[in-house]
Order: sequence, then C-alpha cells, then structure tokens
Amino acid sequence: MSVQRTSLNHMNCSIARTVDLVGEWWTPLILRDLFLGLRRFEDIRRHLGIATNVLTVRLERLLEHDIVVRRKYQDAPARYEYELTEKGKDLFPIMAALTAFGDKWLAPQGAPLLMVHDCGHAATPTVVCDHCGEAITADRVQPEPGPGSDHFRPVVVT
Amino acid sequence: MSVQRTSLNHMNCSIARTVDLVGEWWTPLILRDLFLGLRRFEDIRRHLGIATNVLTVRLERLLEHDIVVRRKYQDAPARYEYELTEKGKDLFPIMAALTAFGDKWLAPQGAPLLMVHDCGHAATPTVVCDHCGEAITADRVQPEPGPGSDHFRPVVVT
Repeated sequence: MSVQRTSLNHMNCSIARTVDLVGEWWTPLILRDLFLGLRRFEDIRRHLGIATNVLTVRLERLLEHDIVVRRKYQDAPARYEYELTEKGKDLFPIMAALTAFGDKWLAPQGAPLLMVHDCGHAATPTVVCDHCGEAITADRVQPEPGPGSDHFRPVVVT
Repeated sequence: MSVQRTSLNHMNCSIARTVDLVGEWWTPLILRDLFLGLRRFEDIRRHLGIATNVLTVRLERLLEHDIVVRRKYQDAPARYEYELTEKGKDLFPIMAALTAFGDKWLAPQGAPLLMVHDCGHAATPTVVCDHCGEAITADRVQPEPGPGSDHFRPVVVT
C-alpha cells in the first residue's frame, strides 16, 4: 500500500475530490467501523484484520482532513481513540448509498446488515432531491456549471 | 496501478463489496464520465487524461461485473463504446452522495457542477429513509443483523 498515486484533488470536480479523500481502499471500512461505534485503534485494527502501519497512515490522513479527531486515553504505552467530526459524520450518506447498492446487487443471501431508521423501519437508503423529495437518478438530472466552475468544459462526444 | 490487492469481496458487508467493485481509484471518474454522456473509449481516455492500459483494465472489470456493456462502433481499427447497464445506473446515487459531500466540504469556490433535477431546481442530493422520507444520518439509524447475516458479529468495544 506504499504506492504513491497522483492526487485527483486538482480536478475541479466534487466527485474527484471526495474520492481522493475517501477512495483509498481501506478508508470506507475504517469509516464504517467508526460509524458502528468503534473508537480505539486496536479495536479497529483487529476488527478489520488490517496491518498496523496501513491503519496508521489511513487514520493520519483522516486526521489531517478533519474527518476524525484523536484522543489519548492511556499513557505508557500511549493508546489513542478516534471520533468522527461533523465533517466525518457527513460521510454517512455515502456509506448509506454504498450499502444500498451492495444490498441490492452484491448480496445474493440478502442484506448482511439492516439500517433500522428511527422511524422504526429497516430503511433502504434513497437519494432524493432536497427540493421536491423525488428520487435522483441519472436520467432525472442535468449537469450545469455551478458557482465554482472556473471554466465549464462541456463534454464533447466526437 | 499494477499492484495486486487482496479482494474485500469475502467480507460479508455490502460496503466492502461495493468498494471492491467501484473503489479503485479511477473507476468513480470513469463512471462520472459515462453518466455525463461519454461513451467512446477514446473520449473517456482524453477527458480523464488516463493511460490507455489503466482505462482498459478498469473498463474490463466493469464489463465483467455487468456495470457496462460494450459495443463495437467501428472496424479496422476496432473502436468500442460503453454504456451503463441497469446495474451501472444504480451507482448514480453513490455518485450523487459523493458530489454532495464534495460540494459542501471540498469546494471553497462553490460547486463546480450543479445537478438540475427534473423538478427544475438545482438539487442537493439527500439520502433519506424510503419509508418515512426523513434524512438518514449516523445518529438516526441502528445496525441490526439482516437476512444475509451468516453470523452477526456485534462490535465489541474493549
């Protein structure tokens, strides 16, 4: 996991930037464990069966980007626990959308885990428009240049 | 990009399985381009500035997993175009959730691209419960073993 990869961050694209942040292989599973309530380095390491140095690097990146905060809970030897920040918690909808896809297409035995919403039902996470509440699907949205578009490059299909 | 990585597919987790499928670095951006309407290998390659062999490997994986279908549109030399399947189109909510996070946290100049929903508004993709329509956030759901849980391993925080 020591391969240096070019950053996608320079692309003026919110998908590229977010993938650059959370797209490294283990990171979504570390986030999953944090959302499931794990806090301590050693608990996450054991739960994922991940190498110590890999987990260290991934958590340091999440720290740098204010996705988690770290707290020492023990001295000699020093032991740390991690907690999601407000920004980190905002990654949950991505986890939910990943889960919905995996449950539908990659879980022939059925969903391994249900998300029971506080309305009392096992929820299928659904992505909707915040204005009308209707589903957002590929054929129901059109891309348009936004305020952060320094130069809108329309897709030219040759 | 030739590093062989252990598959996450054996984990009985819908996040792990979906990340295993789409989590490779370039794949979300290839999907983005397909959602934006690009079809042809050469157009995607040029738009992303990606190496031919990397794009080939990524598209082959998407083909294998029925995310895209391929069509030859020219002989001598053979040229191919790619189209998202129904399964592939179901990845759009993940793209939408990635976009919403990136727009909020990683776009200081504002969203590079707006998603104009067919209701007429620029949409902020929002993940909700399909039963009650209310937002799904980390503090509003509880995990429970699902039908595909061969053995539910509760998280033990030591």
